[in-house]
Amino acid sequence: MTVNIFLEFAAPWISGLTPYVPGKPLSELERELGIQDAVKLASNENPLGPGPKARAALAEALAEVGRYPDGGGFELRRALAEHHGLPPQAVTLGNGSNDVLDLIARTFLHPGAESVFSEYAFAVYPIATQSVGATARIAPARDYGHDLEAISRLINEQTRVVWIANPNNPTGTWLAAETLRAFIGSLPKTCIVVVDEAYTEYVEAPDFPDATHWLATFPNLIVTRTFSKVHGLAGLRVGYALSDPAIAELLNRVRQPFNVNSLAQAAAIAALSDREHVRASVELNRAGMRQFTQAFAELGISYIPSVGNFITIDCGRFAGPINESLLKRGIIVRPVGNYGLPNHLRVSVGLESENARCIAALAEVLG
Amino acid sequence: MTVNIFLEFAAPWISGLTPYVPGKPLSELERELGIQDAVKLASNENPLGPGPKARAALAEALAEVGRYPDGGGFELRRALAEHHGLPPQAVTLGNGSNDVLDLIARTFLHPGAESVFSEYAFAVYPIATQSVGATARIAPARDYGHDLEAISRLINEQTRVVWIANPNNPTGTWLAAETLRAFIGSLPKTCIVVVDEAYTEYVEAPDFPDATHWLATFPNLIVTRTFSKVHGLAGLRVGYALSDPAIAELLNRVRQPFNVNSLAQAAAIAALSDREHVRASVELNRAGMRQFTQAFAELGISYIPSVGNFITIDCGRFAGPINESLLKRGIIVRPVGNYGLPNHLRVSVGLESENARCIAALAEVLG
Repeated sequence: MTVNIFLEFAAPWISGLTPYVPGKPLSELERELGIQDAVKLASNENPLGPGPKARAALAEALAEVGRYPDGGGFELRRALAEHHGLPPQAVTLGNGSNDVLDLIARTFLHPGAESVFSEYAFAVYPIATQSVGATARIAPARDYGHDLEAISRLINEQTRVVWIANPNNPTGTWLAAETLRAFIGSLPKTCIVVVDEAYTEYVEAPDFPDATHWLATFPNLIVTRTFSKVHGLAGLRVGYALSDPAIAELLNRVRQPFNVNSLAQAAAIAALSDREHVRASVELNRAGMRQFTQAFAELGISYIPSVGNFITIDCGRFAGPINESLLKRGIIVRPVGNYGLPNHLRVSVGLESENARCIAALAEVLG
Repeated sequence: MTVNIFLEFAAPWISGLTPYVPGKPLSELERELGIQDAVKLASNENPLGPGPKARAALAEALAEVGRYPDGGGFELRRALAEHHGLPPQAVTLGNGSNDVLDLIARTFLHPGAESVFSEYAFAVYPIATQSVGATARIAPARDYGHDLEAISRLINEQTRVVWIANPNNPTGTWLAAETLRAFIGSLPKTCIVVVDEAYTEYVEAPDFPDATHWLATFPNLIVTRTFSKVHGLAGLRVGYALSDPAIAELLNRVRQPFNVNSLAQAAAIAALSDREHVRASVELNRAGMRQFTQAFAELGISYIPSVGNFITIDCGRFAGPINESLLKRGIIVRPVGNYGLPNHLRVSVGLESENARCIAALAEVLG
């Protein structure tokens, strides 16, 4: 490997930084293998895309695309505040929730500070931590999920941020309300705890928490959400954090003034009010999850039980060649070797026909 | 002023960080003063908005908005590479050029490192510098423009980035090819020089440089461009850096994987090929600039000669109340007190009718 000559002049922590590996876009598979009818089940997108209200808002907002977005996001923050029963000052907008996670790292982490998260947690936590020169402490997982006791043991005076994904991606595991609440209450006040609820709308377990209800109790809590999943707006990039307004004020100091584009703002406001689209999307996901788990049971494919819109299977051997075989059949799923799961593949729940093609290909390839 | 209790746990440099102050959106003026037919000449937008090719591309790209963008920006980087006669590996995409400037700061600056720029330079340079805990060194301006000798005197062993805007915003001043080239050649190789060419398409002076032509000569050079100005895509957020591929590789380590939304990518590709729209936009700007400067001469309003799509006037006294009077007349321009120019107002060149309303209001208010 060639050494990058500019590394010498870069911030010292850039040398160890490895970029996030996204799901393969359909266009890339087409370029590489000439496959035109591929199915992408690699990025936990909503297979229905945006709902009719968001589509209508987008069409209308196109007229003003020559103007800068409202940098303060007045209307969207007001809509989110109303939706959550919080003041608009509690809302920080991001260019996807990735941007919000990055803002948290840039505000509360720095060289000498530490962040803590679980093995198999979302890949952006280590990247955001390292990109500001802070140190990541990784707690071993328990049954692929967050082990809160193991996380607690890693917290010390240098810990500034604890990242919790509920449910977690890519494992689909989750934490019950009482367990998570007790954990947050046990943290020192010097430590920000981020509960990343990107997939929250899909979860139907009765004891699954909505951490936004705890914001008044725990001033050091930040809850993050996204419009990329159930709202079907991944291409537009919009997510947000809810927190104590004092925390939001700090995050907004680091935020780029026009980080959320004007079409994303308009579509997000409309999506928030489209309960029917959320309901239909969750229902489709429930049916698709059943379709997958039944097929996996029949085929003898082992998987990690998931409450999200994706399911991670255990191939029982290195998944790289299996992934290659799936790609040749026009099925894009997500290798998760970079999560420390080299034998697993994460499959997003798609349309019934897409799921069926994926199941058929898996039966061939793993059979 | 209340002290933010979370500052104690934040990175030390967050305490001194003040967010960018954007131009007032039309919707805000409507909320505050009930004015519905206001003219916004505050953010150097293209009054024509995007051209027909970009509009068509946008309409088509709407169908895929439920999918994540291509994180690698394959097609847009290829189009930009072809446009500039460079390899795609030389291109780094940003969520507006603001994002690119931020990526440069996050890659090459850190606590202990310094950046250098001119008095009255673009406000994002100090913000990006401070947001990573680095130190800003500010050179005094000469006739409102960059004084390259004064900048050179501030460069030392800690200097990692020099920011040059050509032309500069908000003053509209510029540097000739020979002058700028000699300056870049004089810099130590340990020092990245950023030439920010956000307004380059508007400049018609024969000795105005295109710094992208110097990339092969100076490996420490980064040139930034945007689609927010002449291309009329400010609402979508897309900008880029051109540099040595080794520098781009480092910037891309820090870049958020989906920082440029899919509509922005599609529209930018189309905008790049729409030479007719660029030509029409530049022509409109030329006529508008003449309209303003002739009126200012007649009205005895003093201004800084500008080669951009904006012009900064000297009110001869504190501009705050003048700005308030303009707002009441439905004219939004840009106060530049935060640039150290409390007596000045920056006026973007708009449509002929918008310019005329602004001129009439200025005549009333300043008369």
